Amino acid sequence: MTTFENVRIAKEANIYFDGKVTSRNVLFADGTKKTLGIMMPGEYEFSTSLKEEMDITAGKLEYKLNGQDWQTIDGSGVFYVPANESFQLKVHTVVDYCCSYLAE
Amino acid sequence: MTTFENVRIAKEANIYFDGKVTSRNVLFADGTKKTLGIMMPGEYEFSTSLKEEMDITAGKLEYKLNGQDWQTIDGSGVFYVPANESFQLKVHTVVDYCCSYLAE
Repeated sequence: MTTFENVRIAKEANIYFDGKVTSRNVLFADGTKKTLGIMMPGEYEFSTSLKEEMDITAGKLEYKLNGQDWQTIDGSGVFYVPANESFQLKVHTVVDYCCSYLAE
Repeated sequence: MTTFENVRIAKEANIYFDGKVTSRNVLFADGTKKTLGIMMPGEYEFSTSLKEEMDITAGKLEYKLNGQDWQTIDGSGVFYVPANESFQLKVHTVVDYCCSYLAE
């Protein structure tokens, strides 16, 4: 099991889409931030401010980046979303994810 | 916002009841453990091994301990479950919780 060491975590969750998407903020000693989240089945659109690495650790989803075709991740996989863009998700089974916010 | 400092957190979530209940393990430097979790509306039964402090930080639920009446928490509240017991929950709106495992 992967663990993150020496971090600060918010007690309260971030709750979106009536709780179908929830996440928790994890802050690292070097000032970087990740969120650990759960998405229930459904269709969602998100927008980025920073570049994001979306690391899917469980579940099945399709994702669509601007100007690209739908791609499927089933079980595990990673995709990147540029800063200041929106992306679409179709979540088919409960998804566990780790999102890293990147300074480019 | 409350945060927990200098902790270790598991990257992967614990997923129960088809994802309607999920939690993440947070390990403290003193060896103690908490889980931060989300429960979607539904009815659940859980069993304890250690004594548990259930700290509800958002949402509405009813809980029933062995031999006691149903009690309601709406928004925030705390209850304790003895070790080696089961308890029942009726979750009415998305619940955000922090569960502490206590050595008595």
